[in-house]
Amino acid sequence: MPHFIVIGHDAPTDADFSLDDLPGVGRLDLLARCVNAGLLLSHGLRADTMVSLVMQDTATVRFHGGEIGGLNPDERSIAGVIRTALQRLDGRGSLPTGVSTKTDGLEPLLQAVDGHLFMLDEDGDPFDGARVDGDATFVLSDHREFTARETSLLEEYGAESVSLGPEPLHADHAITVAHNRLDTAGAT
Amino acid sequence: MPHFIVIGHDAPTDADFSLDDLPGVGRLDLLARCVNAGLLLSHGLRADTMVSLVMQDTATVRFHGGEIGGLNPDERSIAGVIRTALQRLDGRGSLPTGVSTKTDGLEPLLQAVDGHLFMLDEDGDPFDGARVDGDATFVLSDHREFTARETSLLEEYGAESVSLGPEPLHADHAITVAHNRLDTAGAT
Repeated sequence: MPHFIVIGHDAPTDADFSLDDLPGVGRLDLLARCVNAGLLLSHGLRADTMVSLVMQDTATVRFHGGEIGGLNPDERSIAGVIRTALQRLDGRGSLPTGVSTKTDGLEPLLQAVDGHLFMLDEDGDPFDGARVDGDATFVLSDHREFTARETSLLEEYGAESVSLGPEPLHADHAITVAHNRLDTAGAT
Repeated sequence: MPHFIVIGHDAPTDADFSLDDLPGVGRLDLLARCVNAGLLLSHGLRADTMVSLVMQDTATVRFHGGEIGGLNPDERSIAGVIRTALQRLDGRGSLPTGVSTKTDGLEPLLQAVDGHLFMLDEDGDPFDGARVDGDATFVLSDHREFTARETSLLEEYGAESVSLGPEPLHADHAITVAHNRLDTAGAT
Protein backbone atom coordinates (compact mmCIF):
# COMPACT_ATOMS: atom_id res chain seq x y z
CA MET A 1 0.00 0.00 0.00
CA PRO A 2 1.46 3.39 -0.94
CA HIS A 3 1.30 5.97 1.83
CA PHE A 4 2.11 9.61 1.08
CA ILE A 5 3.01 11.80 4.04
CA VAL A 6 3.02 15.50 3.20
CA ILE A 7 4.60 17.94 5.64
CA GLY A 8 2.65 21.20 5.74
CA HIS A 9 4.98 23.62 7.51
CA ASP A 10 2.45 26.46 7.60
CA ALA A 11 -0.72 24.36 7.41
CA PRO A 12 -3.68 25.23 9.62
CA THR A 13 -4.13 23.33 12.88
CA ASP A 14 -7.60 24.62 13.59
CA ALA A 15 -10.72 25.05 11.46
CA ASP A 16 -10.98 28.80 11.70
CA PHE A 17 -10.41 29.71 8.07
CA SER A 18 -12.27 30.62 4.89
CA LEU A 19 -12.23 28.50 1.73
CA ASP A 20 -11.93 31.60 -0.47
CA ASP A 21 -8.16 32.05 -0.16
CA LEU A 22 -6.58 28.61 0.18
CA PRO A 23 -3.01 29.72 -0.66
CA GLY A 24 -3.30 32.16 2.24
CA VAL A 25 -4.22 29.34 4.65
CA GLY A 26 -0.76 27.80 4.89
CA ARG A 27 -0.87 26.69 1.25
CA LEU A 28 -3.92 24.52 1.76
CA ASP A 29 -4.38 24.63 -2.02
CA LEU A 30 -1.23 22.55 -2.40
CA LEU A 31 -2.16 20.13 0.37
CA ALA A 32 -5.60 19.64 -1.21
CA ARG A 33 -3.97 18.87 -4.56
CA CYS A 34 -1.73 16.34 -2.80
CA VAL A 35 -4.84 14.53 -1.53
CA ASN A 36 -6.28 14.64 -5.05
CA ALA A 37 -3.05 13.28 -6.57
CA GLY A 38 -2.76 10.57 -3.96
CA LEU A 39 -6.29 9.23 -4.05
CA LEU A 40 -8.02 10.02 -7.32
CA LEU A 41 -8.10 8.22 -10.61
CA SER A 42 -10.29 9.21 -13.52
CA HIS A 43 -13.76 8.22 -12.28
CA GLY A 44 -12.37 6.24 -9.36
CA LEU A 45 -10.40 6.10 -6.15
CA ARG A 46 -7.07 4.50 -5.35
CA ALA A 47 -8.47 2.26 -2.65
CA ASP A 48 -5.03 0.98 -1.66
CA THR A 49 -3.52 4.39 -0.87
CA MET A 50 -3.32 6.63 2.20
CA VAL A 51 -2.43 10.31 2.35
CA SER A 52 -1.41 11.91 5.65
CA LEU A 53 -1.14 15.68 5.97
CA VAL A 54 1.11 16.73 8.84
CA MET A 55 0.02 20.19 9.94
CA GLN A 56 2.83 22.15 11.62
CA ASP A 57 3.99 18.93 13.28
CA THR A 58 1.14 19.10 15.77
CA ALA A 59 -1.85 17.57 13.97
CA THR A 60 -2.24 14.92 11.30
CA VAL A 61 -5.20 14.51 8.96
CA ARG A 62 -5.25 11.15 7.19
CA PHE A 63 -7.27 10.11 4.15
CA HIS A 64 -7.84 6.37 3.76
CA GLY A 65 -8.47 5.60 0.09
CA GLY A 66 -10.18 2.33 0.84
CA GLU A 67 -12.70 3.83 3.23
CA ILE A 68 -13.46 7.25 1.89
CA GLY A 69 -16.23 6.29 -0.53
CA GLY A 70 -16.01 9.41 -2.68
CA LEU A 71 -14.11 12.66 -2.96
CA ASN A 72 -14.67 15.69 -5.16
CA PRO A 73 -11.40 16.52 -6.90
CA ASP A 74 -11.38 20.32 -6.61
CA GLU A 75 -9.22 22.13 -4.07
CA ARG A 76 -12.13 23.86 -2.37
CA SER A 77 -14.05 20.62 -1.74
CA ILE A 78 -11.00 18.80 -0.39
CA ALA A 79 -10.06 21.80 1.78
CA GLY A 80 -13.61 21.69 3.13
CA VAL A 81 -13.10 18.04 4.14
CA ILE A 82 -9.82 18.99 5.84
CA ARG A 83 -11.59 21.80 7.67
CA THR A 84 -14.31 19.44 8.89
CA ALA A 85 -11.62 17.05 10.15
CA LEU A 86 -9.88 19.90 12.01
CA GLN A 87 -13.20 20.91 13.58
CA ARG A 88 -13.43 17.42 15.01
CA LEU A 89 -10.01 17.93 16.65
CA ASP A 90 -11.64 20.87 18.40
CA GLY A 91 -14.40 18.55 19.60
CA ARG A 92 -16.97 19.83 17.13
CA GLY A 93 -18.96 17.92 14.52
CA SER A 94 -18.00 14.48 13.24
CA LEU A 95 -15.24 13.15 11.04
CA PRO A 96 -15.83 12.75 7.30
CA THR A 97 -15.99 9.08 6.28
CA GLY A 98 -12.55 7.67 5.57
CA VAL A 99 -10.70 10.50 7.30
CA SER A 100 -8.97 10.29 10.68
CA THR A 101 -7.09 12.80 12.79
CA LYS A 102 -4.42 12.72 15.45
CA THR A 103 -2.72 15.36 17.55
CA ASP A 104 0.62 13.99 16.42
CA GLY A 105 3.45 15.14 14.19
CA LEU A 106 5.92 13.43 11.87
CA GLU A 107 7.81 11.12 14.21
CA PRO A 108 4.93 8.82 15.23
CA LEU A 109 4.17 8.35 11.54
CA LEU A 110 7.75 7.32 10.86
CA GLN A 111 7.72 4.93 13.83
CA ALA A 112 4.72 3.17 12.28
CA VAL A 113 6.33 2.66 8.86
CA ASP A 114 6.46 -0.96 7.77
CA GLY A 115 8.29 -1.43 4.48
CA HIS A 116 10.19 0.99 2.27
CA LEU A 117 10.58 4.59 3.45
CA PHE A 118 11.44 7.23 0.86
CA MET A 119 11.94 10.96 1.16
CA LEU A 120 11.39 12.80 -2.10
CA ASP A 121 14.24 15.16 -2.76
CA GLU A 122 15.57 16.74 -5.94
CA ASP A 123 19.09 15.58 -5.09
CA GLY A 124 18.18 11.98 -4.30
CA ASP A 125 18.89 8.87 -6.36
CA PRO A 126 16.55 8.18 -9.29
CA PHE A 127 13.40 6.40 -8.07
CA ASP A 128 12.67 3.10 -9.72
CA GLY A 129 9.17 1.82 -9.00
CA ALA A 130 10.20 -1.72 -9.89
CA ARG A 131 12.38 -1.85 -6.78
CA VAL A 132 9.36 -1.56 -4.49
CA ASP A 133 8.23 -5.06 -3.59
CA GLY A 134 5.74 -4.28 -0.84
CA ASP A 135 4.50 -1.32 1.15
CA ALA A 136 6.08 2.04 0.47
CA THR A 137 5.85 5.29 2.40
CA PHE A 138 6.84 8.52 0.66
CA VAL A 139 7.51 11.67 2.67
CA LEU A 140 7.24 14.99 0.84
CA SER A 141 7.59 18.58 1.88
CA ASP A 142 5.16 21.32 0.88
CA HIS A 143 6.39 24.51 -0.80
CA ARG A 144 9.27 24.68 1.69
CA GLU A 145 12.39 22.51 1.97
CA PHE A 146 12.58 19.86 4.67
CA THR A 147 13.91 21.42 7.87
CA ALA A 148 17.21 20.15 9.31
CA ARG A 149 15.26 18.42 12.08
CA GLU A 150 12.97 16.68 9.59
CA THR A 151 15.91 15.55 7.48
CA SER A 152 17.75 14.14 10.47
CA LEU A 153 14.58 12.41 11.70
CA LEU A 154 14.02 10.88 8.28
CA GLU A 155 17.60 9.68 8.16
CA GLU A 156 17.28 8.25 11.66
CA TYR A 157 14.33 6.16 10.46
CA GLY A 158 16.28 4.98 7.44
CA ALA A 159 14.56 7.01 4.74
CA GLU A 160 16.10 6.69 1.32
CA SER A 161 16.38 9.96 -0.55
CA VAL A 162 14.95 9.60 -4.05
CA SER A 163 14.36 11.91 -7.01
CA LEU A 164 11.77 11.58 -9.77
CA GLY A 165 13.63 13.43 -12.49
CA PRO A 166 15.79 16.40 -13.36
CA GLU A 167 13.13 19.07 -12.77
CA PRO A 168 12.03 20.25 -9.30
CA LEU A 169 8.39 19.17 -8.95
CA HIS A 170 5.57 20.45 -6.78
CA ALA A 171 4.62 17.93 -4.08
CA ASP A 172 1.33 17.04 -5.77
CA HIS A 173 3.02 16.47 -9.13
CA ALA A 174 5.61 14.28 -7.39
CA ILE A 175 2.83 12.12 -5.91
CA THR A 176 1.30 11.71 -9.38
CA VAL A 177 4.63 10.65 -10.87
CA ALA A 178 5.45 8.27 -7.98
CA HIS A 179 2.06 6.59 -8.38
CA ASN A 180 2.66 6.24 -12.11
CA ARG A 181 6.09 4.67 -11.53
CA LEU A 182 4.48 2.12 -9.23
CA ASP A 183 1.56 1.59 -11.63
CA THR A 184 3.79 0.91 -14.62
CA ALA A 185 6.09 -1.31 -12.59
CA GLY A 186 3.05 -3.30 -11.54
CA ALA A 187 4.03 -2.84 -7.92
CA THR A 188 0.62 -1.86 -6.61
CA MET B 1 8.35 22.48 -27.21
CA PRO B 2 5.58 20.47 -25.55
CA HIS B 3 2.09 21.74 -26.25
CA PHE B 4 -0.85 20.36 -24.28
CA ILE B 5 -4.30 20.83 -25.80
CA VAL B 6 -7.12 20.09 -23.38
CA ILE B 7 -10.64 19.73 -24.72
CA GLY B 8 -13.18 21.19 -22.31
CA HIS B 9 -16.50 19.84 -23.48
CA ASP B 10 -18.56 21.84 -21.00
CA ALA B 11 -16.09 24.67 -20.41
CA PRO B 12 -17.36 28.25 -20.25
CA THR B 13 -17.13 30.40 -23.37
CA ASP B 14 -17.97 33.66 -21.66
CA ALA B 15 -16.80 35.27 -18.43
CA ASP B 16 -20.13 35.30 -16.65
CA PHE B 17 -19.33 32.95 -13.79
CA SER B 18 -18.31 32.93 -10.12
CA LEU B 19 -15.01 31.53 -8.86
CA ASP B 20 -16.71 29.93 -5.86
CA ASP B 21 -17.93 26.78 -7.63
CA LEU B 22 -15.39 25.85 -10.29
CA PRO B 23 -16.60 22.25 -10.79
CA GLY B 24 -20.01 23.72 -11.61
CA VAL B 25 -18.52 25.93 -14.32
CA GLY B 26 -17.90 23.18 -16.87
CA ARG B 27 -15.23 21.59 -14.66
CA LEU B 28 -13.07 24.68 -14.70
CA ASP B 29 -11.29 23.22 -11.62
CA LEU B 30 -9.89 20.46 -13.82
CA LEU B 31 -8.91 22.84 -16.62
CA ALA B 32 -7.14 25.10 -14.10
CA ARG B 33 -5.20 22.10 -12.76
CA CYS B 34 -4.23 21.23 -16.34
CA VAL B 35 -2.69 24.70 -16.72
CA ASN B 36 -0.89 24.23 -13.41
CA ALA B 37 0.42 20.79 -14.44
CA GLY B 38 1.50 22.05 -17.84
CA LEU B 39 3.34 25.19 -16.78
CA LEU B 40 4.47 25.01 -13.17
CA LEU B 41 7.58 23.62 -11.59
CA SER B 42 8.47 24.02 -7.95
CA HIS B 43 9.37 27.72 -7.73
CA GLY B 44 9.48 28.11 -11.49
CA LEU B 45 7.77 27.99 -14.85
CA ARG B 46 8.18 25.62 -17.77
CA ALA B 47 9.11 28.34 -20.22
CA ASP B 48 9.16 25.94 -23.18
CA THR B 49 5.56 24.73 -22.79
CA MET B 50 2.17 25.87 -24.06
CA VAL B 51 -1.26 24.85 -22.78
CA SER B 52 -4.35 25.45 -24.90
CA LEU B 53 -7.82 25.05 -23.42
CA VAL B 54 -10.47 24.41 -26.05
CA MET B 55 -13.77 25.63 -24.68
CA GLN B 56 -16.77 23.84 -26.25
CA ASP B 57 -14.95 23.89 -29.59
CA THR B 58 -15.75 27.59 -30.01
CA ALA B 59 -13.05 29.43 -28.06
CA THR B 60 -9.44 28.68 -27.21
CA VAL B 61 -7.48 30.16 -24.31
CA ARG B 62 -3.74 29.61 -24.64
CA PHE B 63 -1.06 29.95 -21.96
CA HIS B 64 2.47 30.58 -23.25
CA GLY B 65 4.94 29.40 -20.60
CA GLY B 66 7.73 31.55 -21.97
CA GLU B 67 5.77 34.76 -21.83
CA ILE B 68 3.57 34.49 -18.80
CA GLY B 69 6.01 35.77 -16.21
CA GLY B 70 4.26 34.27 -13.21
CA LEU B 71 1.24 32.20 -12.27
CA ASN B 72 -0.26 31.35 -8.91
CA PRO B 73 -0.76 27.58 -8.72
CA ASP B 74 -4.18 27.40 -7.10
CA GLU B 75 -7.32 26.63 -9.10
CA ARG B 76 -9.09 29.85 -8.16
CA SER B 77 -6.24 32.08 -9.32
CA ILE B 78 -5.82 30.25 -12.61
CA ALA B 79 -9.59 30.24 -13.18
CA GLY B 80 -9.49 34.00 -12.59
CA VAL B 81 -6.91 34.35 -15.36
CA ILE B 82 -9.09 32.26 -17.67
CA ARG B 83 -12.08 34.44 -16.83
CA THR B 84 -10.11 37.61 -17.62
CA ALA B 85 -9.11 36.10 -20.96
CA LEU B 86 -12.73 35.24 -21.76
CA GLN B 87 -13.76 38.81 -20.87
CA ARG B 88 -11.35 40.00 -23.55
CA LEU B 89 -13.17 37.78 -26.08
CA ASP B 90 -16.25 39.83 -25.17
CA GLY B 91 -14.30 43.00 -25.91
CA ARG B 92 -13.82 43.93 -22.26
CA GLY B 93 -10.58 44.53 -20.36
CA SER B 94 -7.19 43.37 -21.53
CA LEU B 95 -5.50 39.99 -21.86
CA PRO B 96 -3.32 38.71 -19.04
CA THR B 97 0.39 38.66 -20.00
CA GLY B 98 1.32 35.43 -21.75
CA VAL B 99 -2.26 34.45 -22.50
CA SER B 100 -3.95 34.60 -25.89
CA THR B 101 -7.44 33.81 -27.09
CA LYS B 102 -9.08 32.79 -30.33
CA THR B 103 -12.63 32.12 -31.37
CA ASP B 104 -11.52 28.78 -32.75
CA GLY B 105 -11.98 25.16 -31.87
CA LEU B 106 -9.86 22.02 -32.13
CA GLU B 107 -9.30 21.71 -35.87
CA PRO B 108 -7.26 24.91 -36.42
CA LEU B 109 -4.99 23.80 -33.58
CA LEU B 110 -4.42 20.45 -35.25
CA GLN B 111 -3.74 22.13 -38.59
CA ALA B 112 -0.96 24.12 -36.93
CA VAL B 113 0.82 21.10 -35.39
CA ASP B 114 4.44 20.74 -36.44
CA GLY B 115 6.05 17.58 -35.07
CA HIS B 116 4.62 14.66 -33.13
CA LEU B 117 0.90 14.59 -32.43
CA PHE B 118 -0.35 12.36 -29.63
CA MET B 119 -3.80 11.73 -28.25
CA LEU B 120 -3.80 10.48 -24.69
CA ASP B 121 -6.04 7.48 -24.37
CA GLU B 122 -6.17 4.63 -21.88
CA ASP B 123 -6.20 2.11 -24.70
CA GLY B 124 -3.27 3.58 -26.61
CA ASP B 125 0.25 2.21 -26.95
CA PRO B 126 2.63 2.87 -24.04
CA PHE B 127 4.15 6.35 -24.35
CA ASP B 128 7.92 6.45 -24.40
CA GLY B 129 9.31 9.95 -23.95
CA ALA B 130 12.62 8.92 -25.49
CA ARG B 131 10.91 8.56 -28.86
CA VAL B 132 10.12 12.28 -29.01
CA ASP B 133 12.95 13.99 -30.84
CA GLY B 134 11.44 17.44 -31.33
CA ASP B 135 8.17 19.24 -30.80
CA ALA B 136 5.29 17.26 -29.38
CA THR B 137 1.62 18.12 -29.12
CA PHE B 138 -0.56 16.14 -26.70
CA VAL B 139 -4.34 16.26 -26.96
CA LEU B 140 -6.32 15.34 -23.85
CA SER B 141 -9.99 15.24 -23.02
CA ASP B 142 -11.46 16.65 -19.81
CA HIS B 143 -13.69 14.47 -17.60
CA ARG B 144 -15.49 13.17 -20.69
CA GLU B 145 -14.31 10.79 -23.39
CA PHE B 146 -13.28 12.16 -26.77
CA THR B 147 -16.35 12.44 -28.99
CA ALA B 148 -16.52 10.39 -32.19
CA ARG B 149 -15.96 13.60 -34.18
CA GLU B 150 -12.86 14.50 -32.14
CA THR B 151 -11.43 11.02 -32.50
CA SER B 152 -11.92 11.01 -36.24
CA LEU B 153 -10.45 14.51 -36.54
CA LEU B 154 -7.42 13.45 -34.49
CA GLU B 155 -6.96 10.38 -36.67
CA GLU B 156 -7.30 12.50 -39.80
CA TYR B 157 -4.40 14.64 -38.59
CA GLY B 158 -2.29 11.58 -37.82
CA ALA B 159 -2.51 11.57 -34.04
CA GLU B 160 -0.92 8.57 -32.40
CA SER B 161 -2.95 7.13 -29.53
CA VAL B 162 -0.75 6.69 -26.46
CA SER B 163 -1.28 5.58 -22.88
CA LEU B 164 0.76 6.50 -19.80
CA GLY B 165 0.09 3.39 -17.75
CA PRO B 166 -2.47 0.84 -16.65
CA GLU B 167 -4.58 3.22 -14.54
CA PRO B 168 -7.03 5.77 -16.01
CA LEU B 169 -5.62 9.19 -15.12
CA HIS B 170 -7.22 12.60 -14.77
CA ALA B 171 -6.13 14.95 -17.56
CA ASP B 172 -3.99 17.06 -15.22
CA HIS B 173 -2.25 14.00 -13.82
CA ALA B 174 -1.61 12.79 -17.37
CA ILE B 175 0.08 16.10 -18.22
CA THR B 176 2.32 15.77 -15.16
CA VAL B 177 3.33 12.25 -16.14
CA ALA B 178 3.91 13.16 -19.80
CA HIS B 179 6.17 16.04 -18.75
CA ASN B 180 8.08 13.72 -16.45
CA ARG B 181 8.58 11.15 -19.24
CA LEU B 182 10.00 13.91 -21.45
CA ASP B 183 12.10 15.30 -18.58
CA THR B 184 13.67 11.97 -17.74
CA ALA B 185 14.23 11.13 -21.39
CA GLY B 186 16.03 14.46 -21.75
CA ALA B 187 13.79 15.32 -24.64
CA THR B 188 12.90 18.84 -23.52
